[in-house]
Amino acid sequence: MATLVELIAKKRDGATHEPGEIRRLIEGLVAGELADYQMSAWLMAAFLRGLDTRETLELTDAMLESGSVLDLGDVPGVKVDKHSTGGVGDKVSICLAPIVAACGVPVPMVSGRGLGHTGGTLDKLEAIPGFRVDLTIDDFRRIVRELGTCLIGQTREIAPADKRIYALRDVTATVESIPLITASILSKKLAEGIDALVLDVKVGRGAFMKDLERARALARSLVDVASRGGKGVTALLTDMDHPLGLTIGNALETIEAIEVLRGGGPSDLVELTLELAAEMLVLGKVATDAADGRARAQQAIASGSAAELLRKLIAAQHGNPRVVDDPTLFARAPVILDLSAQRSGFVVDIDPLALGLAGVELGAGRTRAEQAVDPAVGLVLRATKGSRVSAGQPLIEIHARDQAAAARVTERVLGAFRIDDDAAARGPLVLEALRGSAAG
Amino acid sequence: MATLVELIAKKRDGATHEPGEIRRLIEGLVAGELADYQMSAWLMAAFLRGLDTRETLELTDAMLESGSVLDLGDVPGVKVDKHSTGGVGDKVSICLAPIVAACGVPVPMVSGRGLGHTGGTLDKLEAIPGFRVDLTIDDFRRIVRELGTCLIGQTREIAPADKRIYALRDVTATVESIPLITASILSKKLAEGIDALVLDVKVGRGAFMKDLERARALARSLVDVASRGGKGVTALLTDMDHPLGLTIGNALETIEAIEVLRGGGPSDLVELTLELAAEMLVLGKVATDAADGRARAQQAIASGSAAELLRKLIAAQHGNPRVVDDPTLFARAPVILDLSAQRSGFVVDIDPLALGLAGVELGAGRTRAEQAVDPAVGLVLRATKGSRVSAGQPLIEIHARDQAAAARVTERVLGAFRIDDDAAARGPLVLEALRGSAAG
Repeated sequence: MATLVELIAKKRDGATHEPGEIRRLIEGLVAGELADYQMSAWLMAAFLRGLDTRETLELTDAMLESGSVLDLGDVPGVKVDKHSTGGVGDKVSICLAPIVAACGVPVPMVSGRGLGHTGGTLDKLEAIPGFRVDLTIDDFRRIVRELGTCLIGQTREIAPADKRIYALRDVTATVESIPLITASILSKKLAEGIDALVLDVKVGRGAFMKDLERARALARSLVDVASRGGKGVTALLTDMDHPLGLTIGNALETIEAIEVLRGGGPSDLVELTLELAAEMLVLGKVATDAADGRARAQQAIASGSAAELLRKLIAAQHGNPRVVDDPTLFARAPVILDLSAQRSGFVVDIDPLALGLAGVELGAGRTRAEQAVDPAVGLVLRATKGSRVSAGQPLIEIHARDQAAAARVTERVLGAFRIDDDAAARGPLVLEALRGSAAG
Repeated sequence: MATLVELIAKKRDGATHEPGEIRRLIEGLVAGELADYQMSAWLMAAFLRGLDTRETLELTDAMLESGSVLDLGDVPGVKVDKHSTGGVGDKVSICLAPIVAACGVPVPMVSGRGLGHTGGTLDKLEAIPGFRVDLTIDDFRRIVRELGTCLIGQTREIAPADKRIYALRDVTATVESIPLITASILSKKLAEGIDALVLDVKVGRGAFMKDLERARALARSLVDVASRGGKGVTALLTDMDHPLGLTIGNALETIEAIEVLRGGGPSDLVELTLELAAEMLVLGKVATDAADGRARAQQAIASGSAAELLRKLIAAQHGNPRVVDDPTLFARAPVILDLSAQRSGFVVDIDPLALGLAGVELGAGRTRAEQAVDPAVGLVLRATKGSRVSAGQPLIEIHARDQAAAARVTERVLGAFRIDDDAAARGPLVLEALRGSAAG
């Protein structure tokens, strides 16, 4: 049998691993037989030589089996989750999970925290006074069973090999590899014990994947590997060349997501939520097709059943459910600075990356994993792409801890906007949909 | 300025590093700012993407400057060393250094130990009773000044970054990279404070480089990088498809090298020693050309001056100089097993790798760096390629610690020989010579 070093050499030389070889590497890493410096050499070789679908699935399985896989066998129904590759202003999970659960499809959701310019669902949820994301697995299972959804953070037990490998990739320039990203995403998601998965693969300046071709390749890889793993899967390629919704910042975004459940909210956020809900309801075998799924999701909003589900969920997760009806219960930034258009014309561009980074600088995000975030601070758009504005009319609000903090980001925030004489409409929100073969 | 992770990404993407970038990586490794797992990712990227001559020289310089560089300024003359990439039965250094020094060219030689199937000069020297290779740098400098040569082991002070990187390469499948091999060899050799270097790049089954094309590429790289670094340099590509000389094993090989200094020794060993000596004497500006160098080397043997120099050297390094005149002072294996030809014919092939591995199994070499070696054991060829043998006539002697040890390697040793009806002569010993531009 080949030694572990010979397995590194094999990928180095561009060969395809035999079944079982990638599993031996991952098990070796977990058992301490393969050192971090050996893993990182293999990761660089895999980055440069690639992994095929079967190899990527084996990597996924080996990483997810390095920890415990949730057994949600006592939750009836086809369990479906959604994963977003991350964007600016993406608060979809907070309104999506209650809508889909209200329609009868269980959504056991394990979310992440923000890092870099993109936010994280856990940070947004923790803006709800008292809300806890660190539940035990037993509580998680019970709440999913009783309410149809629960939103928690990744536990130490979920895919520990992925955590270790991700930490290595982060410091060895091996992050941007489609098979490695695929295995990392899927190992965590499939460890939730789900039957199907909808992927929101973001494309554009505010996304991890800046261009459509790379995003499509990632979506294809995710769909192929999840399908081969026997999961129902659909990936939507969605626009992240513009912030999603009107808010950036934890409390501000959670308030906006709640507005969607109350029948309001900005049109792009509503649209994306309905599209993703429709796909989840199809995969969850509750809707016959996407149009039916969309209608059911709209009904869950209109009837108030989704909002009611969110109230119960917040209470079950130790938060104050009254926030759903009273946004003043959220923390509010002491300083709100209105920035106005410096000329008249049409807003032709808003750079999501610049606004995401400004949000981080205000304290809404973090640049290192151990940093705390400020729930109150952030940005509120008063104009969007395509808006006609007059000089002096408000463009955006900065919600800051103090005047100095607001002043520090003003130039960056204003620099995100481009105003011109000719109008430019925003392009489509959903660019493409890829469906897995097992998705029916 | 690019972060260290960005430098890894740069090589990953196939770019050429700017001057100073490779130095930052190596200095970062030494300073603890770059972790081993980051270094190994860069090594794999460099393995797959390559390093050009300038990058390889910068890696060489950064590794050699990670430690102390010997200052031999008080030793007059052009100081020249020889490095062999390692083979089976290669005891050349032990006769070569005294010959070249006796001709007036200082040879400050830092050697290595055997690992795997190839032997090491230090192990062979230590077969001389009392001989010490762990001298202080001051003693080394003094002996080179007084006698013209001294042979020691690598000190902790010499190129510590190379030691660390080599240990990583060994376990991350990044050994067989021509630029990385080049930098490793040259960083250690140039740290000796030499002015010029002759390289014996071995080719064939008993060598690290099995085929001529790879060996030529390594020789080219070594010559280009050393020349660019301002050193005189010549590389000889020499045959290692057959063991060098008639002996394998530490005491046996040292005795054979001494025979060369006494005017005897097997013709291939004599020939290679004279060729390498000639190149060193040219680079050392003592000989006008290779023919003149060869004549001077032959004269140093014939006059006894080289043998006399070895006696003084052994005494200076705490060994018993009488071994030069009395081989019975060396340790001798308790068991000598003669293996005979099983058929009549011509010896058409002797596989050096099989014999090298048999030597290791007998205890003459090591498979792990911390193992001790047995000076007495080894193999003595009684027939060489091209020899006519009759069935029952001796082919080779096994010198072993006990009968069982001899029996264990018998099959492997016999398997190294191929006897056929038609004679096959051994090819040329020196296949090619590459000379650096700075070599004059």
